[in-house]
Amino acid sequence: MDKKFAAHIVREFEPVNLEFPFSTLDSVITPTDSFYVRNHFPEPKIDVNSWRLKIEGAVEQPFEVSYAELLSLPSQTASAVMECAGNNRVFLVPRVEGAQWELGAVGNAEWTGVPLSVLLDRAGMSPHAVDIIFEGSDKGVPAQPPKPEDPIHFARSLPLAKARRPEVLIVYKMNGEPLTASHGFPVRLVVPGWYGMASVKWLQRIIVSEFSYDGYFQKIDYAFWKERDGSPVRVPISEIELKAQIARPSIREIVPAKTNYLIHGAAWAGEREIVKVEISVDGGQSWQDATLLGDAAPYSWVLWNFDWLTPEAAGHCVVMSRATDSSGRQQPMERGPGRDTYRITHVLPVPVEIR
Amino acid sequence: MDKKFAAHIVREFEPVNLEFPFSTLDSVITPTDSFYVRNHFPEPKIDVNSWRLKIEGAVEQPFEVSYAELLSLPSQTASAVMECAGNNRVFLVPRVEGAQWELGAVGNAEWTGVPLSVLLDRAGMSPHAVDIIFEGSDKGVPAQPPKPEDPIHFARSLPLAKARRPEVLIVYKMNGEPLTASHGFPVRLVVPGWYGMASVKWLQRIIVSEFSYDGYFQKIDYAFWKERDGSPVRVPISEIELKAQIARPSIREIVPAKTNYLIHGAAWAGEREIVKVEISVDGGQSWQDATLLGDAAPYSWVLWNFDWLTPEAAGHCVVMSRATDSSGRQQPMERGPGRDTYRITHVLPVPVEIR
Repeated sequence: MDKKFAAHIVREFEPVNLEFPFSTLDSVITPTDSFYVRNHFPEPKIDVNSWRLKIEGAVEQPFEVSYAELLSLPSQTASAVMECAGNNRVFLVPRVEGAQWELGAVGNAEWTGVPLSVLLDRAGMSPHAVDIIFEGSDKGVPAQPPKPEDPIHFARSLPLAKARRPEVLIVYKMNGEPLTASHGFPVRLVVPGWYGMASVKWLQRIIVSEFSYDGYFQKIDYAFWKERDGSPVRVPISEIELKAQIARPSIREIVPAKTNYLIHGAAWAGEREIVKVEISVDGGQSWQDATLLGDAAPYSWVLWNFDWLTPEAAGHCVVMSRATDSSGRQQPMERGPGRDTYRITHVLPVPVEIR
Repeated sequence: MDKKFAAHIVREFEPVNLEFPFSTLDSVITPTDSFYVRNHFPEPKIDVNSWRLKIEGAVEQPFEVSYAELLSLPSQTASAVMECAGNNRVFLVPRVEGAQWELGAVGNAEWTGVPLSVLLDRAGMSPHAVDIIFEGSDKGVPAQPPKPEDPIHFARSLPLAKARRPEVLIVYKMNGEPLTASHGFPVRLVVPGWYGMASVKWLQRIIVSEFSYDGYFQKIDYAFWKERDGSPVRVPISEIELKAQIARPSIREIVPAKTNYLIHGAAWAGEREIVKVEISVDGGQSWQDATLLGDAAPYSWVLWNFDWLTPEAAGHCVVMSRATDSSGRQQPMERGPGRDTYRITHVLPVPVEIR
C-alpha cells in the first residue's frame, strides 16, 4: 500500500464508532490502531488501581479480583476474529437502521487473558445455573424503545455450554499490549466464534444466574425473531456465520484492462474452519477457487488471493467471493429472512470499472 | 341513568378498540354490549364447525377438541374482572404511546368454560414443561419495533404455576351467552387476576413448552423492565394490581353545591380481595371510608358508595378514591418508576366543579 490512509473510517462521533478500512488489509493480525471500535455509550474512565472484577450471583463463594491478581493467573493467547453483528449493513437495500458499516466492522487480533472457566470454577457455580451475565462499566440510556427509563450498563450473557469452553477469555492484552481504552481497558471478555456484542468491554461484574437473561442487549437489541413451535420468539444473536470478504478491488475501483490483478481478502467461519473460497468475476455466474494463504482454523480468519486476468474490453463487472466451511455451509447468494438488521452473510457484490 | 349513552367510546376504528363508558357503571356484571374491546389485529372470521383447539408441544399425547366436545366437558362459571394493562393511560402526563384509555378499559363479567387443567392433564405434560403458550387466530404485523417481518398470531404464555390454578378457564360463554365475535368466539382463555393480554381471544392452539416463552406480546409488548441481579431485565406483565375507580362524578362534572351526592365506583385487586375503599374530596389531604356494596372476593370487583355532602361555596375540588387489599397493599399517590406505559395503579384525580 503506497497510499496514505486514515487509520479508521468514522461512523459515529459520540459514542465513538470507528471502522477498519478493509481495503488496507495487509496482515493476518489487524493492527490495534486501525481495529474497528463499537461503543454503545461514552467510554468509561477507569482507575486500574481501584478497579475490581466481581464474580457473584448463584455461586458458592462470590469473590473479586484486582488487575494485578488477574495478571498473575494462568493465561492463554489465541487469535480470533471480532466481527460486529451489523458488519456489511451498508449493503442492505432498502437501507435499515443502525450504523452503516461497510466491510470493516471486523478484525482479527491476538488476545491474551485468563480462561473464564478458571474464575467460574473458583466461585463454584450453582447446579441450577443456566446463564452467565457479563456487565461492562459503560453506561447510558439506549436509543431504541422498548428501553429502560434509567441508564443501564452494557451487558450480555453466555449460556453455560459456551461459557465453559476453553476459548472464552477474560482478556487484558490485545496484540501483545495492554488493552487500549477503546478496546476495554483494563479487562474485557472475548468470546471467539461469536459476534462482537458478546465480548463485553470494560468488564466489571460476572453474574452467575439461574434464569435465562432478558436484558436489553440480549433480547431487544442484538436479537432476532426465530420460529419455535410455529411462532416467532426473540433469540439473542450468537455465533459468527461464514464469510469471505474482498479487500481489493474496493467498491467502484477502476481496474486496468487486460492485466493481472491480485484479488485479495480474508475469510472466516466463526467456530468452524474455512475450507474453500471461490471467486466470481461475472456477477456470480461462474466460480473459481481462490488460494488460501496459510492454514485455516476455527475462530481466526485466513487470508486468500486470486490471480485475475482482467477483461480486454473496457466496461463494468462485478467481483464476488464465496466461502465454504468445514460443516459444508456455503454463503448464500441472497439475504435470508428473519435476520432483522444483523448477520449479513450472503455474497456481496463488488462492482468495478474496467478501463 | 336517565341520559342515553353510546354503548362504547371508540378509541380505535381498525383494529377495533372500544371502551366501556365507566360513568355508566350500574351493576356488578358489566353488560357484554358495553364491555371494552381490545383488539390487536382484525377480528378473524371463524367457522365453528371446522374450528378445533389443538393441545400440543411437550406433551405425551397431543390432541384436538371440537367446539361441541369442549361444551360437553366439565365446566365452571365465575365472575372476574378483565382489565387492559393500559387502562387509565390518558391520565399520564406527559402523554405516552398506546391507546388513550380513560377509566373504562375494564369490566367484570361472568365467564363459563372448562378449566385449563382438564386439558393439560389429558395431554400429559412433560416434567420439564415451564410455560404454556396460548395462540389466537388473529394475525398481523405489530406496529412497534423490534417486530417480526411476517404476520404473527397474538400469543401469550402462562407459567406452570398459574396455568394449573383452578380459576383459569377455556371460556365459551360470557354473561351466560356464547362469546361474541369481539370477545373471542368461539373460545378464549380467561386468566382471572391477570391483566387482559393474558386472556387470549379466538384461541386455536395451546403449546406446552420446555422454554420460557419469548414471543412479541410476551417480551416486547406487554412487558416492563425489572431489576434483577442489579440490572434491568424484560419481564412480562402479569397480575392485576389494586384499584378503586370513581364512576360518578365523572371528570369535570358540574356538581350542585350543598347537596348530598352519592359518589359511586368499583374496586378490585387482582388475585387478592379489596378490604377498604377510601374517598378524599380535598385532593388527598383527608380520607374517609366508603361503603362496600356486598362481599369482596378475589378476581371480581366490588361496587362501593360514598355519601358526600358537597361544599356550600362554588368552586373547584378534586375527588379521589383509594383501595386497600387483603395483603395490606394500598394504592400509592404517585406513579412509580419502571412501569413503561402500563400498570397504572396510583390514585387518580377527578376534578369537579361545584356550582
